[in-house]
Amino acid sequence: MNRKIIEEIVQFGDERNWKQYHNPKDLAISLTLEASELLEIFQWSSSEEAVSKNLESISDELADILVYCVLLADSLDLDIDRIIRNKLQKNNIKYPIAKAYGKKDKYDEL
Amino acid sequence: MNRKIIEEIVQFGDERNWKQYHNPKDLAISLTLEASELLEIFQWSSSEEAVSKNLESISDELADILVYCVLLADSLDLDIDRIIRNKLQKNNIKYPIAKAYGKKDKYDEL
Amino acid sequence: MNRKIIEEIVQFGDERNWKQYHNPKDLAISLTLEASELLEIFQWSSSEEAVSKNLESISDELADILVYCVLLADSLDLDIDRIIRNKLQKNNIKYPIAKAYGKKDKYDEL
Amino acid sequence: MNRKIIEEIVQFGDERNWKQYHNPKDLAISLTLEASELLEIFQWSSSEEAVSKNLESISDELADILVYCVLLADSLDLDIDRIIRNKLQKNNIKYPIAKAYGKKDKYDEL
Repeated sequence: MNRKIIEEIVQFGDERNWKQYHNPKDLAISLTLEASELLEIFQWSSSEEAVSKNLESISDELADILVYCVLLADSLDLDIDRIIRNKLQKNNIKYPIAKAYGKKDKYDEL
Repeated sequence: MNRKIIEEIVQFGDERNWKQYHNPKDLAISLTLEASELLEIFQWSSSEEAVSKNLESISDELADILVYCVLLADSLDLDIDRIIRNKLQKNNIKYPIAKAYGKKDKYDEL
Repeated sequence: MNRKIIEEIVQFGDERNWKQYHNPKDLAISLTLEASELLEIFQWSSSEEAVSKNLESISDELADILVYCVLLADSLDLDIDRIIRNKLQKNNIKYPIAKAYGKKDKYDEL
Repeated sequence: MNRKIIEEIVQFGDERNWKQYHNPKDLAISLTLEASELLEIFQWSSSEEAVSKNLESISDELADILVYCVLLADSLDLDIDRIIRNKLQKNNIKYPIAKAYGKKDKYDEL
């Protein structure tokens, strides 16, 4: 991920002396809460309806999730690009194209 | 976010003909599920205990969350860096340094 | 709620010496995790498809949620019937029939 | 569960013509959202601090979760006491007292 934007996110919290609260468990809790705030926009609605009425809110909530991802990675000294590439490699083994093509099943049910 | 890694993530799904499932509502659901898989690592444990025993799993689950963030942004044509910067600006107004310094309260309780 | 079934649930945990883990915060985390396991059954599927293929899993996950609700209520000495009735009263004020009839909006948008 | 309170919950929704929204998938989403609202009370706090400051909010959010559990069971014609007992039986096999005593591990790691 863009080094500059990671710095902007980390600095935002440091300026407000928030690092004291940012232990990994509470950051993981925060990620769950933000993911729910995003999902709430789709409650009782179809995908299309929610997107057409609330694109700005969806963008804001998605941004919140990304901010907490960066804070959690920062608290554990994880490189975001590296952990994504590692996971894509693992997923490539779990979901080989030949087996997984067009299928929505979980890897242990392919 | 790094343009190349976004392409790798999107291509992974396209190679497997998964775009048909990737409507925004189901992607938002997926973000919630992945956030829970991350949080599960911390269930019944302190932050330190969970991190010392499970750093690789935490990295993998965080990567899953980031992958779905990219897929959702891609499905809605959202630029990740731009939506993060917009949200930091809004947060700067909700949480001015003078008011928010050292405090964990939500903005409407500051 | 049926006093006997509450006792069966609480006893199940006591027989296994699990009360040591059942602090309210970790029970609240558990409720989130179980709710996600239920939601996962509906991932990528329509409501009808998920129900027709997985009614037993849905029942099991719903039961898990209810078990944790009972454990949380028990840890805080809350009476389930009483807290439900209190909340229905508050909801009656937030969602008066005349205003809320047929509407899915949140109370602050009615 | 107490038949009378189930009727009060179901009737509350029927009086407001809300059954049209109460398909199982959206009810499962709602359970996730309510579980998050409960968990939010514990964000950044210890269990004790959250309970001492917010017992009424915790009761309200727990009640919301229970209300949605009842609505989901009602939409699928499930008997709450029966599905709980079924699950306790399955848990008894997954977590035999001899193996599970005092342990917080998941059943597949016992």
